[in-house]
Parts: sequence; C-alpha cells; structure tokens
Amino acid sequence: MASTDPTLDADRLWSDVMALAEITDPGRPYTRRSFSPLFLQGRAWLAKRFADAGLAVRIDTAGNLIGRLDGADPSLGVIAVGSHSDTVPSGGRFDGIAGLATGLEVVRSLCDAGMRLGHAIEVIDFLAEEPSEYGLSCVGSRGMVGALDPGMLDLTEPGGEKLREALRRVGGDPARLAASRRHDIEAFLELHIEQGTVLESQSLDVGVVTSIVGIRRIEIVFEGAADHAGTTPMTLRHDALVAAAATVTAVRRIAEQLAAEGPDYFVATVGILSVEPGASNVVPARCRLVIDARTTNSALTRRFVEAVERDSAACAAAARVERMPLVTLSDAPPVACDPVLREALRRGAQELGLGETDLASGAGHDAAFMSRVCPSAMIFVPCRQGKSHAPEEWADREAIARGAAVVLQAVKTLDRSLPRKQ
Amino acid sequence: MASTDPTLDADRLWSDVMALAEITDPGRPYTRRSFSPLFLQGRAWLAKRFADAGLAVRIDTAGNLIGRLDGADPSLGVIAVGSHSDTVPSGGRFDGIAGLATGLEVVRSLCDAGMRLGHAIEVIDFLAEEPSEYGLSCVGSRGMVGALDPGMLDLTEPGGEKLREALRRVGGDPARLAASRRHDIEAFLELHIEQGTVLESQSLDVGVVTSIVGIRRIEIVFEGAADHAGTTPMTLRHDALVAAAATVTAVRRIAEQLAAEGPDYFVATVGILSVEPGASNVVPARCRLVIDARTTNSALTRRFVEAVERDSAACAAAARVERMPLVTLSDAPPVACDPVLREALRRGAQELGLGETDLASGAGHDAAFMSRVCPSAMIFVPCRQGKSHAPEEWADREAIARGAAVVLQAVKTLDRSLPRKQ
Repeated sequence: MASTDPTLDADRLWSDVMALAEITDPGRPYTRRSFSPLFLQGRAWLAKRFADAGLAVRIDTAGNLIGRLDGADPSLGVIAVGSHSDTVPSGGRFDGIAGLATGLEVVRSLCDAGMRLGHAIEVIDFLAEEPSEYGLSCVGSRGMVGALDPGMLDLTEPGGEKLREALRRVGGDPARLAASRRHDIEAFLELHIEQGTVLESQSLDVGVVTSIVGIRRIEIVFEGAADHAGTTPMTLRHDALVAAAATVTAVRRIAEQLAAEGPDYFVATVGILSVEPGASNVVPARCRLVIDARTTNSALTRRFVEAVERDSAACAAAARVERMPLVTLSDAPPVACDPVLREALRRGAQELGLGETDLASGAGHDAAFMSRVCPSAMIFVPCRQGKSHAPEEWADREAIARGAAVVLQAVKTLDRSLPRKQ
Repeated sequence: MASTDPTLDADRLWSDVMALAEITDPGRPYTRRSFSPLFLQGRAWLAKRFADAGLAVRIDTAGNLIGRLDGADPSLGVIAVGSHSDTVPSGGRFDGIAGLATGLEVVRSLCDAGMRLGHAIEVIDFLAEEPSEYGLSCVGSRGMVGALDPGMLDLTEPGGEKLREALRRVGGDPARLAASRRHDIEAFLELHIEQGTVLESQSLDVGVVTSIVGIRRIEIVFEGAADHAGTTPMTLRHDALVAAAATVTAVRRIAEQLAAEGPDYFVATVGILSVEPGASNVVPARCRLVIDARTTNSALTRRFVEAVERDSAACAAAARVERMPLVTLSDAPPVACDPVLREALRRGAQELGLGETDLASGAGHDAAFMSRVCPSAMIFVPCRQGKSHAPEEWADREAIARGAAVVLQAVKTLDRSLPRKQ
C-alpha cells in the first residue's frame, strides 16, 4: 500500500471530544465518574470508536481499555498513547479525554495515510485516573506497572463495595492482576490540557513536561463527643469540627509558606471534610478531612507532614478532642520525564513551527506511573484561564489539534529511532 | 366507681421507653427521624398504646398524634401532657420519649385508680420536634399555635420532597392547618431529661424550668472557584473551605466570649458544614454551614449575629471568595414558663419529698411554642453526665418515675385549682 504523509483530521478529533462530553450526568455536567454506569456507557462508546478505527479492543486485568494495531516488525515492542475517560464530579470535557482522542486520531491518521509502523501502537484508556469513591487515583496505571497493592483492592466506597468488586464489575480480574503488568512498551506518550496558565499567558502552543509532581494524600480524623448543642456549655465541649477547622487554617498557612520559598513547586488542599453526625443541634463528634499535597521536591513533603502533625495535634488539644494518627492514603514521588521522548516531542513541535516550552506538571498523571515500566513523556496544550476540574474547563479545537500533531510527529520519530531491545 | 390515690407503675413506664427505643435504625442506634418509615412505625406502636389505655386517638392537621380522655365537666378545657417521639441521627432513648411515656402513664394511673378528672386530659406526640431533613424543628407545636407559616411548608429535603407533602404523608392536612390551632388547652406540662449536669452534680431529683432559651439558626454560604488542586498556585485560589473554616473558629471565639460574660446563658454551635464538590483534588468551590445560637437574653443573639456578620465577611475577603447574605433559618425568642404551673410542679415535688431546684433550659422544647396559646411549664429529670443527642444518653428508671410522679401530682392539683374560664 502506498503511504502518504499522515495528516490529522482536526474536526474528527474535536467531534470525538465533544461526543464523549455528552455522556454526562445531565444535572451535574460534566460528570462521568469511574465505575459508574455513565463511565461504562462512555467506555462502550470508546470501544466502538476503537474498533471502527481498526483496533483490536480488550480490557486488561487492571480494568484498562486498550485498542491495539500490530506493527510490521513483531520483534519490536509497543508505542503507547493514552490518558483517561473518567472525570471528577462536576468536572470538564477535556481532562483525560483530549489525550485519549489524540491517541485514537494518531492511529486513524496513520491508517488513512496507509502508513504502518514497525512498532505496534496501542491507545490506552487508563481506569480511574481521578480519585474515585474508593479513595484511590490512577487505579489502571498502577495495575499496569505492578503498583496496585492487594491492600488497595480492599478499599471500600461509602456504599460498601470494595475496589476488588468494582474492578471485576468493569471487566478487570483482581485475581490475575499480574497479567496486566507490561514489559513490552518502549515509549508512552500522553497529551493533556495544561490545567494552568503558563502556555496561555505566553501565547505558546505546547509545553513539554519536564517532571510530574509527587502527590501525597493524608487523612486526619478528629474524635470528640456528640453533645447537645443547647445544654452543653462552651467550656465543656469536645467539638471535632473546631479542631478540624483550625487544621484547615493551619494547612493553608503551612502550604503558603512552603510555596513562597521557591523555586520548587508546592501546593496543598483540603478538598474533603465531613462532619458527623451533621445535625444543627448536635456538637460534632467526628470530623474527617483529606489533605492533598503536591511538590516537585520530596523534601518539602516531609517538612509539610511534620508541620501538619504538630499543628493538628495542637488544634486537637485546644478543642479537647482526640486526633487519630495521620493516615497516608497514597504517596507517589515526583517523576522526571524521559529525555529521549521529551526531545522527540520538542523536535516535533519545532518541525511543525509551533511555540513550545519546558514545564513542570502540577497535576499527577498516568504517565508518572507508566515511567516505572517504560520511557514516558507528556505534552501540554493550553486551556482557558487554566481552569480544570470544573464545567468551564476549555481547550480550543486548534490547540488540541496542534498538540496531537506533535504527538503524531513524535510517534513517527520514535518508531524509526527507538533503540532495538536486546 | 370508687377511686383510690393513683400510683405510678414505674416498670410499665420504663418498659414503654425501652420498647420505643427498639424501633431504631439498627446500624445507627438510636435513630427514628421524623417523617421516616421508622418514625411512622414508632407512631403506630404509640397509637396502639394510647388506645389500649382507653384514649381516643387522632392525628391533627399539623401532624400531631393525640390521645384524649374526656373530663367529667364538659365546660372545662384540656390539661395536656406531652413531648415528641422523633430523634436526631444517632440520638438517645429518652429525649422526648420519657415525656411522652410520662403522659401515657399519668393517664393510666388515673384510670387504674378510678379517678376521673374534671378536665379532659390529652397526651400529645408533637411532630418533628428535632430539626428534620426539611430544616425546621418543632413542626407540630408550631402548627398547634398558628406559627407554621405557609412559607415553611415549601421547605424541601435533599431528596426534593416538600414539608407540605411530608406532612400529608404522616396524616396531617397542610390545607387545613388552622384546624390544629388550639384555644381549649388550659395547662401544658412537659417532662424532659435535663440534657445537662446541674441535677446530677447536686444530687437533685427534679428541676422546675424557669425559662427556655431562644434559638436562632443561621445559614452562611461561601462561594469560591472549583480549581484544580494540583495546578492552581496557593496565591491564585478561591477556596470556600478556607473561609468557612476560619468562620467556624470565629463562631467558637465569639460564643466563648459571650458565655463568659454571664449571668445569661449563651452557646453557639456549627453542627453542619458541607463542602462542594468534595473531591480531594479539587479546590472547594462552595461551603455551607449552619450556626445554632441559644440564649436566655435576646440582646446577646443580636450582638452575636453582628459579630458573625463582620467576621465571616473578613474571612471571605481573606480567602478571596464571596460570602452570601446570612440567612435566618429559624428564630424563636426565649420564653418564661408559667408561674402557676411552676408552683404546682414545685409543690408536687415537695409533697413527694423530692429534691428540686429552679433551672433554665438550654434546649428548645415544644413547651416554648405551646406557651403562646396556654400556660406551659416543664420539669427536668437528671440524665447521666448530661449526655444527650447521643447513643449513650441515659436516665435511670427511678429518675423518670419520680419526675412522672411530680407531673401526676401537678395534674391533680391543676384539675382542682385552675381558674374556670369565662
């Protein structure tokens, strides 16, 4: 078959992104949470699109949806492109989806041009990249690199279902997790919206990611006493919310101090805080909060946790409540992207005449886990005002198409230049 | 029929309290929230007990369950004894229930002794004394005194049901609320556990309530922006939880200051705080909190609200979020108990050789609303460590029986001595 230089179809790429956005909780756009019926509906749609593009479709034992096109040379491994199709509650249309649609469009462009790679190419929809109801993020990419510990499978959502059962429900096989571990991938590329304002503010087309922040999630529980809010004098209370609220204030102050030190990146957030029993006339007996701390320098995480340990204990003592030991829900170290893949992306951008820069990623991504088993890199495209994880999240049609074209260039480069494995 | 001096059956009274406690959400004892299936099950049991005692049973248009025994003199009005059968989530076995069982036992004791009063006597289970999912407390007693405004019927629980529909569902008639308004009650008595430690610490048997605190409930909503918790630098955040947490700290500080001034009673509590979207990797966009403030002196409520207005606005400005205008969810003024009824209760205790004292009530009660249409008073019995609105809430069998005996004495006294209406 004669091959021409493959060209991306920007309209086809955009229409995939928009079509997946339609599969949302209508009362809370854009919501397609992992393991939910809507998530499965989105995946059924994706699987059909994969098959229509000529890909062989399967779900691995870690619940990842994979479309594969074999390469011309069976002795070569896999070049993979992917991201995720799940969203946070009331999230956006592009986070994860833009990268998935890019992988699919890269394959279609190659096929349309009659160009067959030496390497097999796979498009991967990683399971549950966003934190799910089971309290864990990057479930699928953890599985693919052997980092989905058996203990994690016992995590339970508020309704009582274990992650193990949920994984089975979406087509995975928790008893055979090792089968999802990959040794045959030779390059992993992920396109993602920036979720920040560097590219937009500098009018650049793409960012080549240098490193991905480490993320530690910490749970703190305060236990007081459920006294009557009318008859218990202020001096005799054991109010768990008073301790939790003071801890939220402390987390903010500590994070601001570490971020202001520079040059390393540091942010911390309390995004979950629950109050029990949660009635207006009962003194709160129990509060649970979850802290999300991120940095490019692990030493800052250690200093942050020490300060939170000390200050939350002081908050508990002042409110005369008990603070349970801090629980580390997850802890992923900062990751540097692969220099060869970064260079392929940078050269791709330059060949296309696009403006590019190096960037650190403040968000965690499946690429950070993938780097444990293969060279991995990421490319960012600009998004409006840096807004993400919100309904107003927006990336222009052309912005995504330019980034996807860079990925296509890099895939072609890597297919030619990746060193042959021994 | 020959009458003897009526004697309370302490075992029968206790077994009623324990039997009603069994009707609970088994996973969250003791929970029997108003309008729930368990609540209706509890009421069906109560209605049967009322009927077994020879009472005529009905539900008024405000949803109150009423058992009535006519008096010997049709020209006289009603002496009513009552309380409520609903609980808070994870509440206790005695709050409300002890007073209801007392009313029932007083009637049974009179009947057993062959003693018929001149006045009719009614035992009343007021609907939804505790704050319900519809955000309102004392629904039934409000209805009975004409204080259940039409606007309140439009209050909606999280599932979307309006209070109007819920009222219909439990046997009330929202279209004919005026029919529940009473003009024929000449005395209302309510026994309740103290929910504080005065009686226990002084080894007293009963407290004669002097006044009932006023309760104001205030809602504050903060609105920020749902930014990505990883990519949004600390300096660019609009975190609604940071403002809400600082406000919880401010409420505590202001309440402690007002309480410390003395001699008036003052407490304030944030018992409800919700965070949206409530995901660990999203900066909180919206927080709602509900403050419950109580005092025997309305001037303190005014000072409290002024301080909360000022401080919550400052917290919002510091966190760069918007604070919506404060919303008053409910506002009941402090109420003094009727001196004639208080004297009947005090004399009853003295006749029985019991230790008694005057007390203010830090909790709101249906008696506070009833005082708008008839002389009303309350008696407190000791409860262990003052614990209430919690599973460990406890009052001894004898403590309840002694209090109920005082109510019986007072009912007999009032039947003889209440001034005949013109």
